Amino acid sequence: MSNRTQSYLVGLVGDGVKPSLTPDMHEREADLQGLRYLYRPIDLLELGLPGESVGDLLQSARMLGFNGLNITHPCKQLVLQHLDEVSRDALRLGAVNTVVIRDGRFIGHNTDFSGFAAALASGLPGVRLGRVVQLGAGGAGSAVAYALLSAGVQSLDLVDVDPARSAARAAELSGFFPDSTVTARTTAELPQLMPLADGLAHCTPVGMAAHPGVPLDLDLLEPRHWVADIVYRPIDTELVRGARAKGCDVLDGGRMAVGQAADAFRIFTGVRADAERMRTHFLELVAAEGVAA
Amino acid sequence: MSNRTQSYLVGLVGDGVKPSLTPDMHEREADLQGLRYLYRPIDLLELGLPGESVGDLLQSARMLGFNGLNITHPCKQLVLQHLDEVSRDALRLGAVNTVVIRDGRFIGHNTDFSGFAAALASGLPGVRLGRVVQLGAGGAGSAVAYALLSAGVQSLDLVDVDPARSAARAAELSGFFPDSTVTARTTAELPQLMPLADGLAHCTPVGMAAHPGVPLDLDLLEPRHWVADIVYRPIDTELVRGARAKGCDVLDGGRMAVGQAADAFRIFTGVRADAERMRTHFLELVAAEGVAA
Repeated sequence: MSNRTQSYLVGLVGDGVKPSLTPDMHEREADLQGLRYLYRPIDLLELGLPGESVGDLLQSARMLGFNGLNITHPCKQLVLQHLDEVSRDALRLGAVNTVVIRDGRFIGHNTDFSGFAAALASGLPGVRLGRVVQLGAGGAGSAVAYALLSAGVQSLDLVDVDPARSAARAAELSGFFPDSTVTARTTAELPQLMPLADGLAHCTPVGMAAHPGVPLDLDLLEPRHWVADIVYRPIDTELVRGARAKGCDVLDGGRMAVGQAADAFRIFTGVRADAERMRTHFLELVAAEGVAA
Repeated sequence: MSNRTQSYLVGLVGDGVKPSLTPDMHEREADLQGLRYLYRPIDLLELGLPGESVGDLLQSARMLGFNGLNITHPCKQLVLQHLDEVSRDALRLGAVNTVVIRDGRFIGHNTDFSGFAAALASGLPGVRLGRVVQLGAGGAGSAVAYALLSAGVQSLDLVDVDPARSAARAAELSGFFPDSTVTARTTAELPQLMPLADGLAHCTPVGMAAHPGVPLDLDLLEPRHWVADIVYRPIDTELVRGARAKGCDVLDGGRMAVGQAADAFRIFTGVRADAERMRTHFLELVAAEGVAA
């Protein structure tokens, strides 16, 4: 037998993943922990493959010695049917972003949820979680809402441009968190809701380089509100800058990006990542690429 | 765009490759060169896959971001039909052990041949190459014979337990090297051949832990003969020990094993490997596992 030490091979499957900062974050953290680690982006657009090919890619990855895969759009739901085991939280969310391959079995997790939960705890320690307004009830929004309710939010007002989507998500989440109240709301209700809220979670694309602007009237923010954004390109969105100017406690989108990566790293390796160190590296990477990326 | 530096993901496809020392050799050399490098054994026996699956594995490896694959038994011939380009030497040998994946294309090489040629040059510098007896005309034997003739051997006596095989190989090699003489011989002719030979190349399994013994009567060796063995488990075969005791110049089997690895490393990375440093590491690995492996 060879005396090789354990090494880690992981990948990221999804559309347009080549510019992702996640591979860099994982590899740098592994280097600092003295682990041999290689993280490959597997870009479905570049390969001309549909999201449905995620099952075949999982099989291939297992054969070729991968330890796991991160999964992103459009495969987070599609991957579920190919797994041998799914964490309770990922199953409830109906979305998996992390598959670990162990003894030939595929085990699914959702570190979007757990990563945001960790980011909230470390980036906004001790904030009031009684009542929260959340903008956006898509995939990322579902993970954030789940994390907020898991963290103890008593009342969550869920706003989405698609009222059917916010209503469906609210009903679903109410079932999982019967002690909390989750209500579908509209943008028009924000002037009534914000004065009642402790904080605001933003989960729409508004503020990204390709979608500039703010997702709500900044006059609705008060210094006592905390504000969590999930957009991180740029890291200082108009919302983040506006909230800081008001004196709000702010969680920028990088915290969730780092949180999901740190948690996936732990799942792949069994070794806890240093999330603060990963965040420092992440901020360097974002600064290096500029806002255009 | 991310500012990731180039990294290398390679694998070894074949039957029973898990104990191979090649992954360790590549990874250690890459570490010393400051390259991020991961080398995965892909064991067909463990996966329950036939040699014919090598084409599918190549496709999978390309999709998942591999930079190349080493190929061993039983796929060295089977892989040919799946390649976009093959080096002249590999094509003539009808065997590929190294496939580099570049711009989505599969390019085949044979570093068994080039690795033995390099080993011969570095391990037995300046020896006489006029006439050589070679034992064994299988896959490895073909690569060695091709290397010997490329290195300038004028007359090669090819001995194999299967006379049809040695005859076919001799005819084939004569076609590629019209200025040299390649003759199929039998074991019974060795007492007449050895006194005429400058050296002996041994390419059968005899001397491996599972096949102990010597491939010819050691009394036929004279101090003026050089002896090259390709068996390396153990590294000091009975033939190697016997030849050293006679005072012969000896090339042990580790030289070819290291030579093929060093050359594959260069093909995968574009960076020249330090073959002497790899050999030192290889000898450590062989010593650590003992002769049983």
